[in-house]
Amino acid sequence: MKYNVKSSLSYRVNMPTTFIFNIHALKTSNQTIWEEHLNLEPSMKIEEYNSHDDSSRFVRLKVHKPIDFSLSYSAVVEVTPNIIYENNSKKSIAVQKLDSYIASFLYPSRYCQSDKLMKFAYKEFGDVETVYDKVVAITNWVNGNIDYVSGSTNSQTSAMDTITERAGVCRDFAHLSIALCRALSIPARYFTGYAYQLKPQDFHACFEAYMDGQWILFDPTGLAPLNGFVKIATGRDAADSAVTSIFGNATGTGIEVNCELAEGNFEGFKYDHNHLGVSYG
Amino acid sequence: MKYNVKSSLSYRVNMPTTFIFNIHALKTSNQTIWEEHLNLEPSMKIEEYNSHDDSSRFVRLKVHKPIDFSLSYSAVVEVTPNIIYENNSKKSIAVQKLDSYIASFLYPSRYCQSDKLMKFAYKEFGDVETVYDKVVAITNWVNGNIDYVSGSTNSQTSAMDTITERAGVCRDFAHLSIALCRALSIPARYFTGYAYQLKPQDFHACFEAYMDGQWILFDPTGLAPLNGFVKIATGRDAADSAVTSIFGNATGTGIEVNCELAEGNFEGFKYDHNHLGVSYG
Amino acid sequence: MKYNVKSSLSYRVNMPTTFIFNIHALKTSNQTIWEEHLNLEPSMKIEEYNSHDDSSRFVRLKVHKPIDFSLSYSAVVEVTPNIIYENNSKKSIAVQKLDSYIASFLYPSRYCQSDKLMKFAYKEFGDVETVYDKVVAITNWVNGNIDYVSGSTNSQTSAMDTITERAGVCRDFAHLSIALCRALSIPARYFTGYAYQLKPQDFHACFEAYMDGQWILFDPTGLAPLNGFVKIATGRDAADSAVTSIFGNATGTGIEVNCELAEGNFEGFKYDHNHLGVSYG
Amino acid sequence: MKYNVKSSLSYRVNMPTTFIFNIHALKTSNQTIWEEHLNLEPSMKIEEYNSHDDSSRFVRLKVHKPIDFSLSYSAVVEVTPNIIYENNSKKSIAVQKLDSYIASFLYPSRYCQSDKLMKFAYKEFGDVETVYDKVVAITNWVNGNIDYVSGSTNSQTSAMDTITERAGVCRDFAHLSIALCRALSIPARYFTGYAYQLKPQDFHACFEAYMDGQWILFDPTGLAPLNGFVKIATGRDAADSAVTSIFGNATGTGIEVNCELAEGNFEGFKYDHNHLGVSYG
Repeated sequence: MKYNVKSSLSYRVNMPTTFIFNIHALKTSNQTIWEEHLNLEPSMKIEEYNSHDDSSRFVRLKVHKPIDFSLSYSAVVEVTPNIIYENNSKKSIAVQKLDSYIASFLYPSRYCQSDKLMKFAYKEFGDVETVYDKVVAITNWVNGNIDYVSGSTNSQTSAMDTITERAGVCRDFAHLSIALCRALSIPARYFTGYAYQLKPQDFHACFEAYMDGQWILFDPTGLAPLNGFVKIATGRDAADSAVTSIFGNATGTGIEVNCELAEGNFEGFKYDHNHLGVSYG
Repeated sequence: MKYNVKSSLSYRVNMPTTFIFNIHALKTSNQTIWEEHLNLEPSMKIEEYNSHDDSSRFVRLKVHKPIDFSLSYSAVVEVTPNIIYENNSKKSIAVQKLDSYIASFLYPSRYCQSDKLMKFAYKEFGDVETVYDKVVAITNWVNGNIDYVSGSTNSQTSAMDTITERAGVCRDFAHLSIALCRALSIPARYFTGYAYQLKPQDFHACFEAYMDGQWILFDPTGLAPLNGFVKIATGRDAADSAVTSIFGNATGTGIEVNCELAEGNFEGFKYDHNHLGVSYG
Repeated sequence: MKYNVKSSLSYRVNMPTTFIFNIHALKTSNQTIWEEHLNLEPSMKIEEYNSHDDSSRFVRLKVHKPIDFSLSYSAVVEVTPNIIYENNSKKSIAVQKLDSYIASFLYPSRYCQSDKLMKFAYKEFGDVETVYDKVVAITNWVNGNIDYVSGSTNSQTSAMDTITERAGVCRDFAHLSIALCRALSIPARYFTGYAYQLKPQDFHACFEAYMDGQWILFDPTGLAPLNGFVKIATGRDAADSAVTSIFGNATGTGIEVNCELAEGNFEGFKYDHNHLGVSYG
Repeated sequence: MKYNVKSSLSYRVNMPTTFIFNIHALKTSNQTIWEEHLNLEPSMKIEEYNSHDDSSRFVRLKVHKPIDFSLSYSAVVEVTPNIIYENNSKKSIAVQKLDSYIASFLYPSRYCQSDKLMKFAYKEFGDVETVYDKVVAITNWVNGNIDYVSGSTNSQTSAMDTITERAGVCRDFAHLSIALCRALSIPARYFTGYAYQLKPQDFHACFEAYMDGQWILFDPTGLAPLNGFVKIATGRDAADSAVTSIFGNATGTGIEVNCELAEGNFEGFKYDHNHLGVSYG
């Protein structure tokens, strides 16, 4: 599918501050960028980078003095996610065979303290047969046991908070799911993107679990069709792949996000025994 | 200097378990391995890897059934750390100029929740002039305010625990120092190694801070000479560079570590206005 | 002094909910109530109680169905706090001589985890000579190291959060101070009241420490004169003496507080070597 | 039943330290002490107290210099717990009708952060019909979801740790159960005592929930018969009713506990539709 995506972020800067923004659509074999524009108001020097592991294209901006600014991004992106029709995942991942890059997604991270959730994860999901079924069970459990409550959490909220307080937003749903996967030795990573048909429109966060040689996308919030994403970044958790990281002192003053179909007809992915999931490569 | 290093780790395995061991001396332009041996008792298949970013050489071992085993490593390693005679670090790091790999060490991680320590770090160290002086101040503050108490912490202890409970071991001293550096936008990473003249002999953990184009080693415990290390691994924190990571269920039953001079005379590094630190590359 | 105090609290109730309100001025040998009115809109049955240890006069209200309501209280209260001119406090409290009621304020509580702050408290304040000087040092330390930031915390924030995050409101300043006192075996309790000359007008929270046979008031925020309080309640912490405790589900929709002089001239208490503090009995 | 209870506690004192010991059998209308002895080796001055709310009889001991000491207690105690044959508890507690002393057990406390577990408790137990059935469901849930693992926790472990880490000892089982009750507006308190047929013999901790006018005992560990307890103390949680509270610095060097039948035959309480629980008054 081809999408028009747009986002606009405004900040009030209170002291010299560096920003890292993850808002660009990623370039992958499944995702082609036909056109894109980045605009900064007022005009300042802004630098674009690829992360060292190609998991994001980000921009860094140093603001030297107190001002208000807006950053806008728009792009036309064609995405062809792979539909997963078959699942040959085993009872467990053979950790000793994992590539060392993939294995790095087994470790606990800032917001995903998998080392503290081992017993819980084994009790709740240890008996589920395959890795695929375990991840589906985790996704359903998070969906059923955590309330989606806008504004209930902040940038310091982690999986340990969410599993006890039982409320959060997409970022928190993703962090808890990732922590539970890693607690069962399943590599899992944070995924952020634009999401078609998400209401209200915003950046969205989900997670990917690794099994049978590929990363498969899961959305514990169930708020958007799995095949309607434009991938921005993946990472260990929101610590390294948040939409915005701020080094200094600034206040968000506005955000607008939009993802529309550029052409064609969209049919939302639905799970059944032949449609097991979606992969963005 | 040339060192003979040895380590031996014993475990009782209770169920099928995968181990990742970071005990090999790293190969770097400052560190040459003349000889090394790895021995596993009883004999099992064990695989050696380089981490994807060359920050460690690790072995993975899958144990399929309950047994007791021992892993021993010995090596002859020549190390030539760089002594830092000059410091041109500025008042702050220009985050927007950092290489994206180095910038990844600005983010909070599992045991180093720098995002929660911003105010504390600014209040305590914000006025210190240069980046070098800030890191020295952090190292001294941690040394002076945290008690070294063997057995006071465990593998889940993080910087947030240590800053309030004020006790820990080398791992905890390193985590808190790293968190405080990152809270001031100074890239910092976990460093683990063999340490000559450490008493009692054990694996040691310190941290490296990045400034003026290089990673400089700091040891907030002050328990070993800075120029007597054999580097094993660096990482975001102990989550990805601990000596042992266990995926399954096993109990440590013994550990022996030794680092001796293989030849020559050793003179321990001492700070003065001409000797500002040590870098292992 | 004689004060006119007023408060008005509005709530939207979402499901059957019980409220406990601590808004009445307490009756003590230092505090006389000349007149008071309680008004509930719409009219509902409301019951007044004394807490079992006479530390508060509270009202309980059961709201059976979703409505909006307002509770208003006004009173004319005469208060004669004792000024402390002398301090015979010793180097430490003789815990074994304390009355068992007073000793109960040595224990850690929900928001004052003194058991986790022992090492910190000893390192920072252990060498200060007398109990009085220790409590003054704690009050000054909290005042100097914690930023007063409206809205930075919520009803779950505890001393452990505040000591690391270094920001909060009066409730948080009080909780941290109490925890530090208890960590040094000094009985300390939460104090809530109306405060003359507090800007902007609101309920205020401070703490009392026990020494030399009496409870002395300290205000780590320094936002109101120590001799201008009308006492509402004391307790272990905000868990049992918050202005409002809600058992059910309701949202605050408005709050107004006022404390004015009813007659006479007020001279704010200032610390000097003859004016060591204020006690409300 | 009549029991012979004994306990002996040994400590190494490192600096001047005050101890509070809760080891005496309580005197209640259900519990008569026929004989008791307290012995301190070496001999020191020791004072006995009743807590201000008669919830414990405790001794305080000030040790002025580093020594080793042992405290031994023995008693012959007759206990006649009430068996509960009927349950008229309603769907919920009418908080507004509670005596203010009983209502104080609704508040969150140091180790029972009920305010953080509201959503979890409502989701898991909100639909259970009566208060009695809710508490039984909580007891069974804790028993089924938490592993009893000696040594897995320490004196700082709270309900928030236990609900995520899923392991603990009797104290942790009690704290989590209490927090879940309070989150549902059911008054609940910590109960500590000697327990007949507990293996291995030790002090035991359970909890009491208040309903239908009485405090009923529940043991989420299921390790001892409910009708075989000799009550020592009740409290908000282990913060105010732990067997030992230490103000200073001392290390436990030994503990022995014993509870034997002094005469007669004991038949352990078993739940059935006519035997709903046990109350110690």
